[in-house]
Amino acid sequence: MAHDAEATATYEGKAKIVRPLADAQVAVYFKDTATAFNGQKRQEIAGKGQLNAAISALCFAYLQRAGVPNHFIAQTDARTLRCRRATMIPLEVVVRFATAGSLLKRTGLPAGTACTPPVIEFYYKRDDLGDPLLNADHIHLLRLATADEIDGLAAAGLRAAQLLQQLFGAADLRLVDIKLEYGRCADGLLLADEISPDICRLHDASSGNSLDKDLFRQDTGDLLSGYREVLQRLAAQTADV
Amino acid sequence: MAHDAEATATYEGKAKIVRPLADAQVAVYFKDTATAFNGQKRQEIAGKGQLNAAISALCFAYLQRAGVPNHFIAQTDARTLRCRRATMIPLEVVVRFATAGSLLKRTGLPAGTACTPPVIEFYYKRDDLGDPLLNADHIHLLRLATADEIDGLAAAGLRAAQLLQQLFGAADLRLVDIKLEYGRCADGLLLADEISPDICRLHDASSGNSLDKDLFRQDTGDLLSGYREVLQRLAAQTADV
Repeated sequence: MAHDAEATATYEGKAKIVRPLADAQVAVYFKDTATAFNGQKRQEIAGKGQLNAAISALCFAYLQRAGVPNHFIAQTDARTLRCRRATMIPLEVVVRFATAGSLLKRTGLPAGTACTPPVIEFYYKRDDLGDPLLNADHIHLLRLATADEIDGLAAAGLRAAQLLQQLFGAADLRLVDIKLEYGRCADGLLLADEISPDICRLHDASSGNSLDKDLFRQDTGDLLSGYREVLQRLAAQTADV
Repeated sequence: MAHDAEATATYEGKAKIVRPLADAQVAVYFKDTATAFNGQKRQEIAGKGQLNAAISALCFAYLQRAGVPNHFIAQTDARTLRCRRATMIPLEVVVRFATAGSLLKRTGLPAGTACTPPVIEFYYKRDDLGDPLLNADHIHLLRLATADEIDGLAAAGLRAAQLLQQLFGAADLRLVDIKLEYGRCADGLLLADEISPDICRLHDASSGNSLDKDLFRQDTGDLLSGYREVLQRLAAQTADV
């Protein structure tokens, strides 16, 4: 998602469409498209957009109550969030509480090994390069963020991920890892993009079953029923608050 | 190269054989084997071992004169260095002065882009995983080095690389990047392994031609004549000192 502070054009990504609005705001529309493996696997799943819009709205609102600034303003229809506009930083901030996915091949550790403290990674949002891992020196070389911003992104990412881990935990969901994206706005770094089972690994705490995009990635179950389960548990949880 | 402080067994790597000696010393024997692409490309090149032993001896002695502790004690025959034993850390410390190799695919930058300041990377020495890039959190998760050691390795690697850049520069050779390996010994981190055109990219400063393992990797010329050129220029250089 590359909605720029100066941009006036609509931007369409793999899973969302970002349309500029007046007053430095944007409309973020959630599509039904599911993609994996850098877009090589792709499918339309009717209803996915609606679920991700609802889960994102709920998570962003929760984070705002917890004092984490983010771009969310309001949900305006079943698939659309009105958000603050930000100049997106082309980095994915990944926070990992346990080993899964690419971390298995990188470390040789068995799946589910606890990451204590959590592992923080930066990936370069470049489909043409396969979204490679970057270290701070690479980020500096590419002029993607200043040293202070890198520290800020790591700290903000960790804080947001730990708060979401608590929210999910109270709903009997185990947050394994999560990919966050940030933008710059007048008052600093702003958590943006989405927060949904598309951008994290979420397991049922009892069974260990995936309730996230791994259902689609690995063809291990019905994505919609997993995402619906997440929404229902979170909605029940936040209704209690 | 995994010569361990407690090890009494001979260790054979892709390009060297390390044999334990008395008094916490080892004999490092340089083979004629050239390998690339994680060992997928391999060839015996008669005379390569001798050239790398001589270049390593010369570079290690130069670094010692410049105050950089390393494992080198003496060259004992044409292919063998006597060295201090160290418990090797399974990390490659890569220092890059300009973009080349894997950094091109990671960043999308054109080849030869200056890295200012130099880029430092850590790779996990694990052939079975393809020697992946690690960040500090991965190194901590894998318990490969402490936070202080990571800082120490980065600083020591940068210092050694900059000194070698000066040595090579005076011989009309441009050091593009270099991969260093360290061990632990009683008095701290110790630069070990080898320093040769096998573990760096070295270009003729005038023509820009490779005088390093890229000659073998990319089949762009005769490895032996490139390495011989490096040795002759360095020998002339250090004879001047």
